[in-house]
Amino acid sequence: MDQRTPVRGCDVFMPWGYAIWEQIMRYADTLFKEHGVKNAYFPTLIPESLLVKEAEHFEGFTPEVAWVTEAGNEKLAERLALRPTSETIMYYMFSQWIRSYRDLPLRINQWVNVFRWETKATRPFLRSREFLWQEGHTVHRTLDEANQEVLDIIEIYSRIFEELGALPSLLLRRTEQDKFAGALYTVAFDTFIPEAGRVLQLGTVHNLGQNFAKPFGITFLDSDGKEKTAWQTSWGISTRLIGAIIAVHGDDRGAVLPPRVAPTQVVIVPIIFKGKEEPVLNAARDIGEKLKSMGLRVEVDDRDDYTAGWKFNHWELKGVPLRIEVGPQDVENGGFTAVRRDTGEKTFMKMDEIGKVPEILERMQREMLERARKRLEEAIVTVRTKDELKEAIEEKKIARSFWCGDPKCEDAVKELTGGAEIRGTKFLEIEGAEGEKCVVCGKEAHHVVYIAKSY
Amino acid sequence: MDQRTPVRGCDVFMPWGYAIWEQIMRYADTLFKEHGVKNAYFPTLIPESLLVKEAEHFEGFTPEVAWVTEAGNEKLAERLALRPTSETIMYYMFSQWIRSYRDLPLRINQWVNVFRWETKATRPFLRSREFLWQEGHTVHRTLDEANQEVLDIIEIYSRIFEELGALPSLLLRRTEQDKFAGALYTVAFDTFIPEAGRVLQLGTVHNLGQNFAKPFGITFLDSDGKEKTAWQTSWGISTRLIGAIIAVHGDDRGAVLPPRVAPTQVVIVPIIFKGKEEPVLNAARDIGEKLKSMGLRVEVDDRDDYTAGWKFNHWELKGVPLRIEVGPQDVENGGFTAVRRDTGEKTFMKMDEIGKVPEILERMQREMLERARKRLEEAIVTVRTKDELKEAIEEKKIARSFWCGDPKCEDAVKELTGGAEIRGTKFLEIEGAEGEKCVVCGKEAHHVVYIAKSY
Repeated sequence: MDQRTPVRGCDVFMPWGYAIWEQIMRYADTLFKEHGVKNAYFPTLIPESLLVKEAEHFEGFTPEVAWVTEAGNEKLAERLALRPTSETIMYYMFSQWIRSYRDLPLRINQWVNVFRWETKATRPFLRSREFLWQEGHTVHRTLDEANQEVLDIIEIYSRIFEELGALPSLLLRRTEQDKFAGALYTVAFDTFIPEAGRVLQLGTVHNLGQNFAKPFGITFLDSDGKEKTAWQTSWGISTRLIGAIIAVHGDDRGAVLPPRVAPTQVVIVPIIFKGKEEPVLNAARDIGEKLKSMGLRVEVDDRDDYTAGWKFNHWELKGVPLRIEVGPQDVENGGFTAVRRDTGEKTFMKMDEIGKVPEILERMQREMLERARKRLEEAIVTVRTKDELKEAIEEKKIARSFWCGDPKCEDAVKELTGGAEIRGTKFLEIEGAEGEKCVVCGKEAHHVVYIAKSY
Repeated sequence: MDQRTPVRGCDVFMPWGYAIWEQIMRYADTLFKEHGVKNAYFPTLIPESLLVKEAEHFEGFTPEVAWVTEAGNEKLAERLALRPTSETIMYYMFSQWIRSYRDLPLRINQWVNVFRWETKATRPFLRSREFLWQEGHTVHRTLDEANQEVLDIIEIYSRIFEELGALPSLLLRRTEQDKFAGALYTVAFDTFIPEAGRVLQLGTVHNLGQNFAKPFGITFLDSDGKEKTAWQTSWGISTRLIGAIIAVHGDDRGAVLPPRVAPTQVVIVPIIFKGKEEPVLNAARDIGEKLKSMGLRVEVDDRDDYTAGWKFNHWELKGVPLRIEVGPQDVENGGFTAVRRDTGEKTFMKMDEIGKVPEILERMQREMLERARKRLEEAIVTVRTKDELKEAIEEKKIARSFWCGDPKCEDAVKELTGGAEIRGTKFLEIEGAEGEKCVVCGKEAHHVVYIAKSY
């Protein structure tokens, strides 16, 4: 089934991929709500006059904006942007809602479609002109509270990436050139795809400072009776995560889904021989019921117009974590064979051991994260010269190096390496650059930076 | 907090209203999935060339379509419509996916935003230029199967409206003039708002016949080796449901939410007197924990900067079904006072009776549906003359009458009544019009119809 539509860069999210997204939404939404975030829905269409209010923001997004100019049979008086992100429309509303310190903190999230008219080559999940995401937007009394919010969201995002997606990442503060248009600073999670030698951004958290609160007039009467300007954060993860999970864990035979994010965690394939259908089908269905009652997401593939071999390939391609095979032999021996999608490891299990299936899945989840983390860590090489840097990038590594902080040297890195970028400095962890020289200009270095090609 | 934005007809769905929508989505989505429906996501933007493929459909929607004509800094070669509904883009894809009878039935749903550039006056939830909905689209081998699907979806929708929203409705087959643009026939659910004397459409189910399958080329190789054209249905419910729930059940003091759809089912308000804060607050929190452990959605409003009276009004306005008051007196008596939002009924309950709270909510849910159903039934009056018809509509009733079937008489009904419409004939129930005359022309009647003003 093809997902490409006649609109370039706007693909269908097919049922299987969308079901992965549903798992991500459910997991993330629960964590957001526990943190006090409320969901809402803001209009897709943003008047141009609102979009231009924060100058850097507008400049950053305008090359990628799609515009509605006609409706019914009339030309509109003002162009309406399809939201590339919703800071401007939300903050226009926030400025009217917030009156006093009692209204703070305000934490609003929405799960929506957004539009960025990419001119680069698009690819399903990783770069498309329309994608799905959540965007969280918070308002606080002080900069300290906004900084704390950034830390809290980092904690939540880490859990989503690691616990659910088995995705390790580098937590990096982006450079001034690379931060979100309008932010004070941007923190981003980069995971790594070894085969491509590229990093992939999983999500971002922005401390917006008062950069939006000022032009949008988001002020509040504080408890000391003074009118003050608020502090803000915004943060998002998107359907890119589906692509990340597939790219990080996949193999030659297709996707390999971490059990917690898999729409179907166990598929049961009865292996049928003429005349022995009944006991095998019964056993398969019985195993299915037992596993469902343990809370697992299970499918019994008892279709009779496909062969067992066809089914094996079909479910391997989709990345279902565990396949259970039941043939006449298994039934005679009072059990079944479980096959892990990631390692191919086969285990014959007696029926009274069926309670151990969840453990197999949990172990698989853990091991997938560990393997991916090892690959990420092994990909990092420290380099001190231009030649070492070029070599590291050519060898599909992430270069750890030293930088003076000059944007000219940042640009030079791209030219030197054929497109690799300074992805930023470690956030939360402190890495000193004392005694080191900038890998480009050789002057005193102030930052330990990570350099890689990206999607 | 105001929900109006600078884009007319595009309002914010505020957290409380959106939380009602989340309850609806969760309930409906579970029923859809049990029925074998799979969720997916199709692009928002539909090329004009696709939208025009089914002529009636295009004609029906084009006066309300918003168009993207520019992106980045370029004019697009072809205008892209913001989906008013997704038949065209979905069926273009279905025609590529479906090859054989093995691929059928195909049942796809999406939860998305849609756009209809209304020229009529807009109102929050009931008529807006952007709203949220689900659209289900199915493909079948035969007309019989498509008819059965219509019945199955009617069953599911009835459960959503009645069990969740406590909304009674008339199930009507729309007239030829009024059916969905491109459908064979349309079945719709109309609920009734007594104060306004207007009906409100809750949802629609369309049997599309082969009207789309033919122009889009949705064919399949059947088991008899013949290539055949498929049969289709589509169906949707939207954020209008939020408006229906508020309008049907609300009173002078605000919304009254049926317990099953209420984001918060019980709010606990401690009534605090100086020096007696501690035992009252402890009791309130204890009650909160106990109710949560029973699976109820509970809020303890222990804010100290608002009075109890302010909180009563606040939660009544939002429509929380049950308020629990705990004051020093209640604590001394070892219990609390429960107040139903719909009837104002107050009950003092001992702590060991707390297990009965869910029953109160279930009874309230049931009674709300019964009351609303009674109001709907009492609103229906059978009329046989033009004068009776005019009078019924003036008195804010639903007129049950007789119609010859001529579209001219249908149009005349609107003129006669100042805007009331023939909403259709009963679906599933058979009502004979034998011996009756058309209320407009006096010729032989063929249909028993329901006539009302609508939103």
